[in-house]
Amino acid sequence: MDQSLFLYNTLTRAKEKFVPLNPPNVGLYVCGPTVYGDPHLGHARPAVTFDILFRLLKHLGYKVRYVRNITDVGHLEDEFAGEGEDRILKKARLEQLEPMEVVQYYTNRYHFFMDKLNVLPPSIEPHASGHIIEQQQLIRKIIGDGFAYEVNGSVYFDLKKYNDTFGYGVLSGRDIGDMLSNTRDLEGQDEKKYPLDFALWKKADPTHIMHWPSEWSEGFPGWHLECSAMGMKYLGEQYDIHGGGMDLIFPHHECELAQSTVSTGKPHVRYWLHNNMITLNGQKMSKSKNNFITLEEMFAGGHALLEKAFSPMTIRFYMLQAHYSSPVDFSNEALKAAEQGLSRLMKGMFRLALITPGEKTTVDIEKILSKAEEAMNDDLNTPVLLSHLFDGVRIINLIDEGKESIQKEALDKFRDFMRVYVFEILGLRDENEEKLELLKVPMEMILHWRKEVKARKDFGLSDEIRNKLISCGITIKDTKNGAIWEME
Amino acid sequence: MDQSLFLYNTLTRAKEKFVPLNPPNVGLYVCGPTVYGDPHLGHARPAVTFDILFRLLKHLGYKVRYVRNITDVGHLEDEFAGEGEDRILKKARLEQLEPMEVVQYYTNRYHFFMDKLNVLPPSIEPHASGHIIEQQQLIRKIIGDGFAYEVNGSVYFDLKKYNDTFGYGVLSGRDIGDMLSNTRDLEGQDEKKYPLDFALWKKADPTHIMHWPSEWSEGFPGWHLECSAMGMKYLGEQYDIHGGGMDLIFPHHECELAQSTVSTGKPHVRYWLHNNMITLNGQKMSKSKNNFITLEEMFAGGHALLEKAFSPMTIRFYMLQAHYSSPVDFSNEALKAAEQGLSRLMKGMFRLALITPGEKTTVDIEKILSKAEEAMNDDLNTPVLLSHLFDGVRIINLIDEGKESIQKEALDKFRDFMRVYVFEILGLRDENEEKLELLKVPMEMILHWRKEVKARKDFGLSDEIRNKLISCGITIKDTKNGAIWEME
Repeated sequence: MDQSLFLYNTLTRAKEKFVPLNPPNVGLYVCGPTVYGDPHLGHARPAVTFDILFRLLKHLGYKVRYVRNITDVGHLEDEFAGEGEDRILKKARLEQLEPMEVVQYYTNRYHFFMDKLNVLPPSIEPHASGHIIEQQQLIRKIIGDGFAYEVNGSVYFDLKKYNDTFGYGVLSGRDIGDMLSNTRDLEGQDEKKYPLDFALWKKADPTHIMHWPSEWSEGFPGWHLECSAMGMKYLGEQYDIHGGGMDLIFPHHECELAQSTVSTGKPHVRYWLHNNMITLNGQKMSKSKNNFITLEEMFAGGHALLEKAFSPMTIRFYMLQAHYSSPVDFSNEALKAAEQGLSRLMKGMFRLALITPGEKTTVDIEKILSKAEEAMNDDLNTPVLLSHLFDGVRIINLIDEGKESIQKEALDKFRDFMRVYVFEILGLRDENEEKLELLKVPMEMILHWRKEVKARKDFGLSDEIRNKLISCGITIKDTKNGAIWEME
Repeated sequence: MDQSLFLYNTLTRAKEKFVPLNPPNVGLYVCGPTVYGDPHLGHARPAVTFDILFRLLKHLGYKVRYVRNITDVGHLEDEFAGEGEDRILKKARLEQLEPMEVVQYYTNRYHFFMDKLNVLPPSIEPHASGHIIEQQQLIRKIIGDGFAYEVNGSVYFDLKKYNDTFGYGVLSGRDIGDMLSNTRDLEGQDEKKYPLDFALWKKADPTHIMHWPSEWSEGFPGWHLECSAMGMKYLGEQYDIHGGGMDLIFPHHECELAQSTVSTGKPHVRYWLHNNMITLNGQKMSKSKNNFITLEEMFAGGHALLEKAFSPMTIRFYMLQAHYSSPVDFSNEALKAAEQGLSRLMKGMFRLALITPGEKTTVDIEKILSKAEEAMNDDLNTPVLLSHLFDGVRIINLIDEGKESIQKEALDKFRDFMRVYVFEILGLRDENEEKLELLKVPMEMILHWRKEVKARKDFGLSDEIRNKLISCGITIKDTKNGAIWEME
């Protein structure tokens, strides 16, 4: 079978073999957060999904330039019409802060939580507000090509002309005729030629405090423009992969595609990848329904819908148990199961390090290795990969119990394989690692003492030792080879 | 005595009472890093110095907007002449990366190490490359006011005219006549009217890949311009405090002062604060002499000049032992002493939490409290503050030993005072805190066991327990009230 990487391309609605434009370089652009609120589960999924892609591409030997933007201007409340208040400005008004203080605070929060989730930082993280000149240059280009027009200091993209020339809606599969008939004919929208036209530049009204000079007006760029401008600036007019949540396909990515196509005469992206959404107890996340969990609430506990706190690696592991193109439903039961699954995997990794090589190899490491590779090459199939890694844990247990055996060379290969897939590609971490190290000597002493205590038949004290340790998350297990300890 | 905050103002060469322009708001601007190399000790000192100021101002009830920039364009190798290669571009060329990848990487590294040092993030961290428009607007203003001129696509500040009108050199105390006679008359510098004129905008030569359009040329802003533009954008035309290392007084701050003065007709900053420099074993840090330690080398060990690794809090504590306006010399002996001092302070804090209130108060808490306040109000006198905090530790020890006593109300006040000064204002952390918590129950058990072992006179085993724990950094001490344990 072809051991190449295949990715599902939203544009062609097919799994396609990944062939980069300029190997070994790969250009990857992913839509980052609009930084006006605390990071929540909805931010975690695209970040983790494309972190896996970033890690896999590097593992496959590509030199990846990964660009993920920070939206800090122009993301208005009504995304489709490009109308309403700027989300950052609204937050700044509510919190009585300068807009850039809001941006800085939530950008820092985003970084903090992405780091907890072990999401690697991208190669470049450009801010929309830091690329006004590039966005203005792109507007000039689009006006010059005849696909945008100025009215009253604002500039709009001429969607009808674009549709007639290139066809609008190729990514989302929407028909512009249907869309038109579904669009409300809003009062005051008449400065646009066509109700679906979207803003490239908006003239700032007097209360709008984030604005820059331009030949059209003191104003600010439209939301869709930044990704076209920054993607092309850092990755070139055409690049390999564009990712984001599937909620961004329309209108954001559809409009980005239109802008870039007009300005360069060709589609700017080869592979469009979209992760599916997160639900809570079967419902769409929504602030109004309080069906909405921030990452802080998730990791620290305290949300009404949560029975307990769940660690960052539990959340990461849980998302990886589903394919990125499937929805993921968060519930207490599912998270508790994920917590146990992760713990089983990490205990396996802990024991793998302690295995003594045997005289012969009775297990098939090659098979598991090739199946793991196959799973990731099949459009990042992390749930299938995890099932193979759990086969690995099963093998570790059998070797531990003396039912199977492995020679040094195969053991080295097995260890290397498990480390690469669990830690490097899936980006999981053993959250107990430092604790295990710190407790090593003290726990040896305690097990020694407990042996003495049991030898003198003081079973009361022996139980007390065990129970007190359980309250610290430490479990003692009596095995044929003596007592061992583990952390939950 | 006047319990107001006094700060040494480089501009007036005097300690002045701090009176903000618009209380309770305070605007604070500090020059951040040029992100082309790994953060080193030289980055740590201004960051920690102005972190203390930020923390103190907040403690005093001010609402502080703290702006610290990221220099990612225009910082050329020859800072004075504004000539030579851009530092970021040079690094990008050497590492075969897009310049913004270099910027992102070292910005992330800077944040990582500042976080280790417990330096709070500023309210806004603007990038020079993200404020090209604002810098261009400022250039237009300065040209319009007649203090800058264009030659061959570059724009220079007319230093002679500025000197004749406002007087150049007020901050550094330099005389422009002296400076002129010390300036080499470089070949090819003739496009400037006057050898000391500095660039506001430089036309990019064809190999220079970071450039933006302007009416003068495709080019980039001069280094000094960004701080004028971003400071005034986020803090207003006049603001309270500008900080930085004293190596920046000339030419950087002197030129910034000139630019801002011309563009607004008045000095833009009320209080200029400068931290002194760091030396290593009495010598100036220098890459060429390998007399240069990055923070990673400091925290992880491994540099030829270091006998061991020193923790982030040891470095922070060591810097605070000197007044920010004095030089600090780093040596193994001094750092080891700082490590012990910090450990003594943290053990004191640990024991303070365990003190039982007595029936009377025999110690003078008010005096120490007022002296601490006095020290910080006296131009952030952290070494004097530390001596008072060690008086606090001495009191804790005396209470612990039963030689002094403290009632509940005074104890609460004492605890609150120590916490505020040690953790909130000085920003120190107990680096063992999590470990102490994790080891609490296991160490109770071990001390219990050791008591049994000693009771049966098995002194060999009792010594073995103690020695093995020492290898984990845990010390057992036998006291009149039984054995206690501590972490180094």
